[in-house]
Amino acid sequence: MTKKRAVVLVSGGLDSATALAEARQAGFECYAMSFNYGQRHHQELEAARKVSRSLGVVKHVVIDLNLRAIGGSALTDDIEVPKHRDEAKMSAGIPVTYVPARNTVFLAIALGWAETLGAFDLFIGVNAVDYSGYPDCRPEFIKAFESLANLATQAGVEGKGRFRIHTPLIELTKAQIIRRGAELGVDFGQTHSCYDPTPEGRPCRACDSCLLRAKGFAEAGLTDAALAR
Amino acid sequence: MTKKRAVVLVSGGLDSATALAEARQAGFECYAMSFNYGQRHHQELEAARKVSRSLGVVKHVVIDLNLRAIGGSALTDDIEVPKHRDEAKMSAGIPVTYVPARNTVFLAIALGWAETLGAFDLFIGVNAVDYSGYPDCRPEFIKAFESLANLATQAGVEGKGRFRIHTPLIELTKAQIIRRGAELGVDFGQTHSCYDPTPEGRPCRACDSCLLRAKGFAEAGLTDAALAR
Repeated sequence: MTKKRAVVLVSGGLDSATALAEARQAGFECYAMSFNYGQRHHQELEAARKVSRSLGVVKHVVIDLNLRAIGGSALTDDIEVPKHRDEAKMSAGIPVTYVPARNTVFLAIALGWAETLGAFDLFIGVNAVDYSGYPDCRPEFIKAFESLANLATQAGVEGKGRFRIHTPLIELTKAQIIRRGAELGVDFGQTHSCYDPTPEGRPCRACDSCLLRAKGFAEAGLTDAALAR
Repeated sequence: MTKKRAVVLVSGGLDSATALAEARQAGFECYAMSFNYGQRHHQELEAARKVSRSLGVVKHVVIDLNLRAIGGSALTDDIEVPKHRDEAKMSAGIPVTYVPARNTVFLAIALGWAETLGAFDLFIGVNAVDYSGYPDCRPEFIKAFESLANLATQAGVEGKGRFRIHTPLIELTKAQIIRRGAELGVDFGQTHSCYDPTPEGRPCRACDSCLLRAKGFAEAGLTDAALAR
């Protein structure tokens, strides 16, 4: 029996690595997709490559997309990444690291690839618990995208199947994601979360992403291999 | 009073040129967006530049996006463009020139730009009458995208406004679009519709797009300046 295919968005972070491990665990033949969208640092893409390889994807594509041309985020522009914020500050409003419409764009392109692959399953490691500031990480957004996918595509319209956007992490805390990832064999030493790494590519340990990651590992009672590199 | 901004998708074809003219006519300050997505020919982008300039946009950006990496269409792959088809053939099923999820991708990126510009209005020259084979040109797709836009974005979530996807051509025939464009001062000589131009960049006059265009001009009782170039 041939395996069903899934397209998995892999950013290089620990969430998407765990989402990929879940897709594999669920029996899908995995196609990983990453984006070179004008991030300020390239450690992410290197991490995405390592993670995809070690979790046995069939293919990993990196899509070039110059989101810098439209600006609007500390991740692609010269806006400063906030540091040493407490959780109250992190969860107040939408962070400056928000990239306008990013998940909409990424899912749309993943949908195009899924259609050419004959896949109906997309995996994305969004999470609405620890970091609820991003509008495009919420379940209502995901549901709306799923409806759109079935209207937007030849495959959806012809009724060959129904597209499904899988969000295995959406209700997990960071600690739960880390425990689950470890269980599924994710090598977190290969992942990269920092928004503002040092020139040597090491995590800054002060941005929201580093702080949430450290807290997650502490709560999970595990050591972060990425810090031991 | 400052004008409201709109992001307009401009492909270089006559439909999007007319949509841009409509946006201008409606009083918007227009920001044009085109995509370099691995089309087999570049006349489209040159046409998009000319059209944007002559219709007075504030800015025109071209987004590089290698959709070739995901394949799946005669417009980006080496699949042959069908020629000399009659209308029954054209309207039977989804054409091989369909690019998977293209309008979803284009609208998603336009949405990101709109958000950074503080715009809530997007214009797209889709048309459901003459060429109904594309799933992502239908009103139900547009409505679903509009709902998604308001869930996907900081601007939508914070209720600063409601995103609207304008489709001024959706119910017009090709002849009606041409008449309306002419009325609004579109220079159709600057537009490009052909799926498979000659090496010199002239229209092939045989692909679906050329045939529909020729029929539209004939019905509108106008001469196509692009053929006189």
